[in-house]
Amino acid sequence: MLTRATLDRVVAAALEEDAPWGDLTSESLIPSDAVASAELVARESGVFSGGEVFAAAFRLTDPAIHVELRIDDGNPFPAGAVLASVRGPARPVLTAERVGLNFVQRMSGIATLTAAYVAEVAHTGARIADTRKTTPGLRAFERHAVVSGGGHNHRYSLSDAVMAKDNHLAVLTASGISVTQALEAAIARLPHTTHVEVEVDRLDQIEAVLAAGIGTIMLDNFSLADLRRGVEQVAGRATIDASGGVTLETVRAIAETGVDVISVGALTHAARGLDLGLDIRVERPAAR
Amino acid sequence: MLTRATLDRVVAAALEEDAPWGDLTSESLIPSDAVASAELVARESGVFSGGEVFAAAFRLTDPAIHVELRIDDGNPFPAGAVLASVRGPARPVLTAERVGLNFVQRMSGIATLTAAYVAEVAHTGARIADTRKTTPGLRAFERHAVVSGGGHNHRYSLSDAVMAKDNHLAVLTASGISVTQALEAAIARLPHTTHVEVEVDRLDQIEAVLAAGIGTIMLDNFSLADLRRGVEQVAGRATIDASGGVTLETVRAIAETGVDVISVGALTHAARGLDLGLDIRVERPAAR
Amino acid sequence: MLTRATLDRVVAAALEEDAPWGDLTSESLIPSDAVASAELVARESGVFSGGEVFAAAFRLTDPAIHVELRIDDGNPFPAGAVLASVRGPARPVLTAERVGLNFVQRMSGIATLTAAYVAEVAHTGARIADTRKTTPGLRAFERHAVVSGGGHNHRYSLSDAVMAKDNHLAVLTASGISVTQALEAAIARLPHTTHVEVEVDRLDQIEAVLAAGIGTIMLDNFSLADLRRGVEQVAGRATIDASGGVTLETVRAIAETGVDVISVGALTHAARGLDLGLDIRVERPAAR
Amino acid sequence: MLTRATLDRVVAAALEEDAPWGDLTSESLIPSDAVASAELVARESGVFSGGEVFAAAFRLTDPAIHVELRIDDGNPFPAGAVLASVRGPARPVLTAERVGLNFVQRMSGIATLTAAYVAEVAHTGARIADTRKTTPGLRAFERHAVVSGGGHNHRYSLSDAVMAKDNHLAVLTASGISVTQALEAAIARLPHTTHVEVEVDRLDQIEAVLAAGIGTIMLDNFSLADLRRGVEQVAGRATIDASGGVTLETVRAIAETGVDVISVGALTHAARGLDLGLDIRVERPAAR
Amino acid sequence: MLTRATLDRVVAAALEEDAPWGDLTSESLIPSDAVASAELVARESGVFSGGEVFAAAFRLTDPAIHVELRIDDGNPFPAGAVLASVRGPARPVLTAERVGLNFVQRMSGIATLTAAYVAEVAHTGARIADTRKTTPGLRAFERHAVVSGGGHNHRYSLSDAVMAKDNHLAVLTASGISVTQALEAAIARLPHTTHVEVEVDRLDQIEAVLAAGIGTIMLDNFSLADLRRGVEQVAGRATIDASGGVTLETVRAIAETGVDVISVGALTHAARGLDLGLDIRVERPAAR
Amino acid sequence: MLTRATLDRVVAAALEEDAPWGDLTSESLIPSDAVASAELVARESGVFSGGEVFAAAFRLTDPAIHVELRIDDGNPFPAGAVLASVRGPARPVLTAERVGLNFVQRMSGIATLTAAYVAEVAHTGARIADTRKTTPGLRAFERHAVVSGGGHNHRYSLSDAVMAKDNHLAVLTASGISVTQALEAAIARLPHTTHVEVEVDRLDQIEAVLAAGIGTIMLDNFSLADLRRGVEQVAGRATIDASGGVTLETVRAIAETGVDVISVGALTHAARGLDLGLDIRVERPAAR
Repeated sequence: MLTRATLDRVVAAALEEDAPWGDLTSESLIPSDAVASAELVARESGVFSGGEVFAAAFRLTDPAIHVELRIDDGNPFPAGAVLASVRGPARPVLTAERVGLNFVQRMSGIATLTAAYVAEVAHTGARIADTRKTTPGLRAFERHAVVSGGGHNHRYSLSDAVMAKDNHLAVLTASGISVTQALEAAIARLPHTTHVEVEVDRLDQIEAVLAAGIGTIMLDNFSLADLRRGVEQVAGRATIDASGGVTLETVRAIAETGVDVISVGALTHAARGLDLGLDIRVERPAAR
Repeated sequence: MLTRATLDRVVAAALEEDAPWGDLTSESLIPSDAVASAELVARESGVFSGGEVFAAAFRLTDPAIHVELRIDDGNPFPAGAVLASVRGPARPVLTAERVGLNFVQRMSGIATLTAAYVAEVAHTGARIADTRKTTPGLRAFERHAVVSGGGHNHRYSLSDAVMAKDNHLAVLTASGISVTQALEAAIARLPHTTHVEVEVDRLDQIEAVLAAGIGTIMLDNFSLADLRRGVEQVAGRATIDASGGVTLETVRAIAETGVDVISVGALTHAARGLDLGLDIRVERPAAR
Repeated sequence: MLTRATLDRVVAAALEEDAPWGDLTSESLIPSDAVASAELVARESGVFSGGEVFAAAFRLTDPAIHVELRIDDGNPFPAGAVLASVRGPARPVLTAERVGLNFVQRMSGIATLTAAYVAEVAHTGARIADTRKTTPGLRAFERHAVVSGGGHNHRYSLSDAVMAKDNHLAVLTASGISVTQALEAAIARLPHTTHVEVEVDRLDQIEAVLAAGIGTIMLDNFSLADLRRGVEQVAGRATIDASGGVTLETVRAIAETGVDVISVGALTHAARGLDLGLDIRVERPAAR
Repeated sequence: MLTRATLDRVVAAALEEDAPWGDLTSESLIPSDAVASAELVARESGVFSGGEVFAAAFRLTDPAIHVELRIDDGNPFPAGAVLASVRGPARPVLTAERVGLNFVQRMSGIATLTAAYVAEVAHTGARIADTRKTTPGLRAFERHAVVSGGGHNHRYSLSDAVMAKDNHLAVLTASGISVTQALEAAIARLPHTTHVEVEVDRLDQIEAVLAAGIGTIMLDNFSLADLRRGVEQVAGRATIDASGGVTLETVRAIAETGVDVISVGALTHAARGLDLGLDIRVERPAAR
Repeated sequence: MLTRATLDRVVAAALEEDAPWGDLTSESLIPSDAVASAELVARESGVFSGGEVFAAAFRLTDPAIHVELRIDDGNPFPAGAVLASVRGPARPVLTAERVGLNFVQRMSGIATLTAAYVAEVAHTGARIADTRKTTPGLRAFERHAVVSGGGHNHRYSLSDAVMAKDNHLAVLTASGISVTQALEAAIARLPHTTHVEVEVDRLDQIEAVLAAGIGTIMLDNFSLADLRRGVEQVAGRATIDASGGVTLETVRAIAETGVDVISVGALTHAARGLDLGLDIRVERPAAR
Repeated sequence: MLTRATLDRVVAAALEEDAPWGDLTSESLIPSDAVASAELVARESGVFSGGEVFAAAFRLTDPAIHVELRIDDGNPFPAGAVLASVRGPARPVLTAERVGLNFVQRMSGIATLTAAYVAEVAHTGARIADTRKTTPGLRAFERHAVVSGGGHNHRYSLSDAVMAKDNHLAVLTASGISVTQALEAAIARLPHTTHVEVEVDRLDQIEAVLAAGIGTIMLDNFSLADLRRGVEQVAGRATIDASGGVTLETVRAIAETGVDVISVGALTHAARGLDLGLDIRVERPAAR
C-alpha cells in the first residue's frame, strides 16, 4: 500500500485541483452550521479498492469529518452495498465528495476489472499482472487497485526490473553483438535483486535468451499454439510471461497453455470508473 | 490549452514516477552512442489529442531529442497513420517512450470517445460536455482532450461555477428556506461572472429554480418524455443541461428532445486508452 | 474560502521563508519552558479578514499553540479591539508572529479598503469588484479579503471567464473579421458556464458587441456622461462593468450612472497592510 | 538578486495561478498565427525594478517570445517612458501580460516609494532599510525592489540575524535574568557572523544592552528629542536603528538626529503597485 | 532548530524516497495487527542529535506510533544507551525504521565528530565552526547537529554573510581597484546586519583588508607561525577565523595561536554515520 | 543514471538552499561584466562521479555558463588532474561553485571508497553492494556513485525487493507461523519480478529459508568459519549476501569464503567528501 506521505501529497493536490479558490456552491447555499451524514453506496457490484484514499479526501478537507470504512480493500460487494459512512460539517463534506469519489471509483473500477480476469484464469497456474500503462501520477494507486482485485503487480518502473524488448534486442543484433553475451554482461552489472525479463517475438529467439540465465521470458503476441510450444521449450528454465492484446475472451485459453504470468495492459488503461455514489443527507442543527 | 508551466510540471513528475532511479534496461543493454528513429503509429483509428504532451515527455528527458508532430490535436486519423516522428539518442528515447504514450493514448482515447458522442448528436442543437469525473491531477489534460474530440467543457472545478444539486436544495427545504430566495441571495453574492446551474430531479421543481434567474437548469435522470416537457416548460428562460447515465445508445434521443447540453461523465471516466504505439528503430553509428 | 490544502501549503511555505534555519533570537534568548500569552490587537479600526490564516501560522509552527479567534472575517472593529488570543510555548509563538501578522494585516487592509469603496456606493445598484491585479501566489487569499470587505470577486483567472479587451478586438478588426461573428463563434465553442465580458472604449462599439449575446460589457475609461449614455444604450441587455482609474473620490458618481459593477484594481494593488499588532506576554513557569 | 532557480519557480507558480487551465480569451479569439509587438510603458514616473522577473513571465509561457529590457533595475524613468519591448506569438504574449505586470508593478512601486524615502534623507548619514513586513512568498523579490530604490535591506529572516525585542527582554527581566548577561551568553553561542540587534523603548535601557557588545541598538518609537539623546548616549558604540511609524513627513527629521539606519515597514507593506501598462499591437501575418 | 514546516517536508520526502510504492516486506510478512516495541540503542558512544527528526519519521508514517525520546540533542551517551523508545503498529514501525535511523545516525555522527574537535580546543578561546560543505538539501539538519556537538555555525549560505575569497580579491586587483575601497563600498551597500569576512592568504594582505572595517578576517592555510603573527598583527581589530585542512591532530595547536574561530569543513563532509540501531520486538496480539 | 527531471529538481533545490536571497559577496564585489575561467582540480587521487550533476549546478544558475567535462564518471584520476573546465560570467560561476563541488565531492568520495572495496575483492567471485544507509534525498545520486566506483547496487528501497530480517522472521515464529510457509505465501503474492532476500543469523536457519525458494540469503554477522559453512550448505541454491560490519580490512577474507555479494553500509554512510577544488580565474573584459 502507499505510504501516508504519498497518499496525503497526491490527495491534497487533487483537492486543490478541484477547488482552487473554494467551493462556491456550498459556501453560497449551505448554512455554515449544517451537518451532513453520507453513505458511499455501490450503484453496481464490484470489488472495493481505495478506502484509505477516499477517507483522506475528507480528512484533508476538514479533520472534523469522520469517515468509517465498512469494507476492506479487496472485498467484493453487491449493488446497493454501503461501503463507507461519512459524517461532519456539511460544507467540507460536499467539497470533498467528488475527489473522494474520483479516486475510489477509478480504483474500484480497476479492482473489479482485474477480478474478472483473475476469475477467468481460476485453477490454472497463471497469474494476471498489470503493466506500466497506468495514469501518469497515479501508478502507486492503480497498482494497489490491481492487488485489491486479486491481480499481481509487474515491475513498477524502468528502475526496478529489466524488461528487454524487441528494440533492445534489435540494436544488439544490428551492432553484431550476441544477445546471450549482452544479457550476461548486463546481469553481471545489475543489482543481484534485479529481475531480468526478456521479450521474444518468435520461438527461435528463446534459446539465446535463456542461455543468459534470465528470470522471465515474455512471449509477445504468440498464437496459442506457439505459446504451448514455448512453454514446452522453456521447460521451467524461466518464468513465462504472455502478453499482447489479451482480453477477457482470450485470457482463459492463454492461461491454459501453461504460462505463469499474463500481462494485461487493459487492467489500468481500459478500466472504467465503477459507479459508486455518495448519498448525502444534510441537516441543520436545531436552533440553539 | 494548458500553460507550459503546468505541462512541464506534470510531465516531469510522470517521468520521475516511471524512472525514479534511471532506466536499467537501456543503460545496461543499449550502447550510449546509439541513435533512435521512431514513429508514433496508430494501431486503430481515432481522434488525436496530446501532441504537445507527447513531445514534452521526450524534450524533458533529453533536449537533444527532436519530435515532429504530423497531426494537430483534434484531427481524426485512420489506423496505420503516422502521428509523429521522433529522433535522438536511443537511450532517452526508450526511457521516455512509455510516459509519452501513456499521456497521448489516454488523451486520444478521450478525444475519440468524445467524437463518437458528438457525431451522434450531429445537426441537433445539443452539445456534449464533460464533467468533474476526471483523473485526479490530470483534469486540465483531460478537458483539453474533450475539446480535441469536438466536445465542450463544463465547469472546471468547484471554484469557477455554481452547480446546486439535490443535496444543496434539500438542506434549504429542510431548513425552511425558499429555494428561489436562497438562489437569488447566492447570485447577489457571487461574482457576476459566475454561472449558476441548478439540478432538478422533477418537473415541478423547475419554476422555483427559474424564478431565481439562473443560467442553466440541469434535468437529471429525466425520461425522454419528461425532458421534452422540461424543454417546453423552460421555454428558453435558461440553458438546459441533461445528465444521468447517458450512453452512446441514448444520446441521440436525448439531444432530439431539444436540450442544449448533454453532460457525459463517461467521456473521462470510461474512456479507454487508444492503441497507439511507438515503432522504434535503433541504429548504432558507424565507427568513427 | 480557501481549501485547507491550499491554506496549509501557502502558510507552511511562508513560515519556511521567514525562518529557513530556525529563529535565532528566540532560541538564544527565550527559555525553552517559557509560555506566551498574546492578543492580536487592532492599532487602528478596520474590517477583519484572515482569521483562519493567522491561526494556521501558529498551528503549523507548533500544534501545541492554541489560537482563539474573537471576530469573524468580514466584521468591522474599532481601534483597540482584541481580535484573537494566542497561548502556547513562547518560542514558537514568537517565531510565528510575523508570518501570522503579515497575512492578517494584508488581508484586513484589503478588506478595509474594499469596505470603504462599498460604503461609498451604498444604496446604488452597483457592486465593487476586484481584478487580477493581485499579488502573485496570494490571489485566493486576496479575493477572500475582498469578500470580507463586502466587495465582489471578478473572474479569478484567465481560465474561468472570458474578458475580451481592446487588443483582442483590434486583431479581429485588423484581420477583417467581424467582432460580432468572432464573439458568437467563441461563445459557441466555450463552456456554457463561461461568462463572456467584452471591453469597449467607445459608445459606438457597443452594438456590435451586444449583438453577439455576451454577458457583460465593460465600459473602460468612460466619462460620467458617456457612462450614462452607455447605460441607456445597453438598456439591460447585458451587465455593465465600469473600469479605469476608479478612486474613492470618483466611485460614487460612477455608481450613480447606473452601472452594475465597478472594477477597482486598487482594492488589491494599492491596499496597505492594516496596523495590527501582537501584544505578547511571556511568562516563565514557576520552578517545578 | 534572486537565483534563477527561485525566479523560475515563483514565476511559474504565478503563471499557473493565473491560467490554471489555459487562457480562454486568447484561445477563443486570437488566431494562432497572430504575432504581437508590445511595449511596457510607464503611465507615471518612478524607479524601475523587476526587469528580469517581467521577462521570465514571458519566457516561461513561451520560449519563442523575445523580451528586450530598455532600462536597468534601479533607474528612474519619466511618465511615458518605454521600459521594455516584447515580441512573439500573440496568444502567449497576451497570456503572460498580467503576471508580468503584477510583478513589475509591485516591485517598481516598492522601488519608487523607497526612492522617495531615500531622497528625503539625502546628505544625512542615515540609510533607509526594509523590514520583515513583506508579502508571504515574495520576500526576496521585495527586498530586491528596495535595493533598486536605493534603500538597504535589513535582516532577511528570523534565521540570519538576531533582533531582540521588548518581549524577549521582558521575559529575561521577569525571570530575574540580567539582560546584559543573557545577551552575552547568546552572542557566545551564536555564529560569529550573526549580527545582534536589540530594541529598546527607553533611554535607560541603553547601557545594559550596549554592555553586552551588540552590533546595533534599535530605538523604537522614540521622540526626536530622545533620539538625539540616544545618539549622544550610544556615542558610536553601536549602530543605531530608528523605527516606529516612520513616514515621508517625519523621516528627514529622524535622519537628522544622527541615527544610522531608519527601518520603514511601509516600504513593503504600504507600497502600491506602480501604474505600468503593456501597449500591445497584435498583427496577423499576411496570407502565406 | 528547524521549523516544523521544514522538518515535515524533508522527512516526508525521505519516506517517499524509501518506499515509493510501499513496503513489500512488511506487507507480505507481518500480520496487520502485530504490534512493535522498539528501542533506539547506541552501538557506540557519541553525542546525540536529531531526536525530533527521528520521531518525525515515525509520526509521518503513522500517527498512531508513539515515540519517546530518552535524551536531548546535545547530550553524550555511552555505548549501549537507550536513546529513544518506539511503540505502535508493527508494519509502519518497520517501514519508518531506516529513514529515522539514516537521519539520526548522520546527525549524531556530525555531533560526535564536532564534539571531538570542541574537546580538543577546550580552554582556548577558539570556537569550532562548520562550513558550507554540507549535504545538498540537509544543511539545516547538519548545522543543527554541529550545534548539538558544541560547535558553532558559520554563515549559512551565500545570502546571509559576505565571505570574500581569493578569487574575489584577485579580480579587484586585476581590475586596478583598491581592495580597501571595494570592501568599503560593499559594506556601504550591504545590510547593516551583514557580517563581512575576508579571506587572506598572506600576512601582507591583512592591513588593506582591515582598513575597510570588516568583521572577520580569515587566515587561510597559514602556518602556525604565520597564524601567530597574524593574531598579533590583527590585534583585536577583527575576529580571526583560521581555515584550511584542519584536523583533529592540528586543531589544538591552531587554537593556541589565539585565533577566535576555526572553520572545519570535515565536520560535515567527513563525518560518518554513527552506529545506532533499532532493536525491535514484534508481538502479535493474543487472539481476540 | 538519474533522469534529467530528478537531476534538475534536486540541484535547483540545492541552489536555492545555498543562496535563498542571492549571493551577497559576488554581487557586492564582482563587476557584472567580469568573466570567469575555472578548472575542477583534484587535490587528491580518486574515482570520478557526478560530472553531470556538477555541470547542472552551473547550467541551472546561468545557462550562459559552459561546462566541459574532461573525464567520465567511473574513471580514476591522479592528484592534480583537471576534471572539468568551466567558463562564463563570473558572478554566477562563483555562485554555483560550492553546490557543484558539494555534489561532486560527495559522489566522488563514495566512488573512491567503493573502488577501494572493489579492489580488495578482485578476482574473487564477490561483488560489493551498497545498502539503504544513504543520505535522505540523495539516494539516486549516491547509488550512481557506487556504480561509478565499480560497486553494485542493492535494492533501492522498501518497494522494489523484499528483505526479510530478523524482526520479520521473529514475529512469524512468535505467531506460530512456519517461516517456510510464510515466505512461500509471500512469494506467491509478490510480483514475479520481486527478488526475495532473507537474512539469517545462524546456520540452522538456512534450510527453512531455502525451502521457500528465495533468491538470496543474507548471512548476517557470521564468522568467517560460519560463512564458509554457509556457502557449503547453500550449495548454489541461492545467491549469498554477507553483511555486518564489513571493513576494508575484513572484506577480502569475507570474499574468499565464496559469498556472492558483500553489502557494505559504509560505502555511503562513512564515505567522506573527496578533496576537489575549483581553481577560478576572474578577468574583467578590456574597456569597450
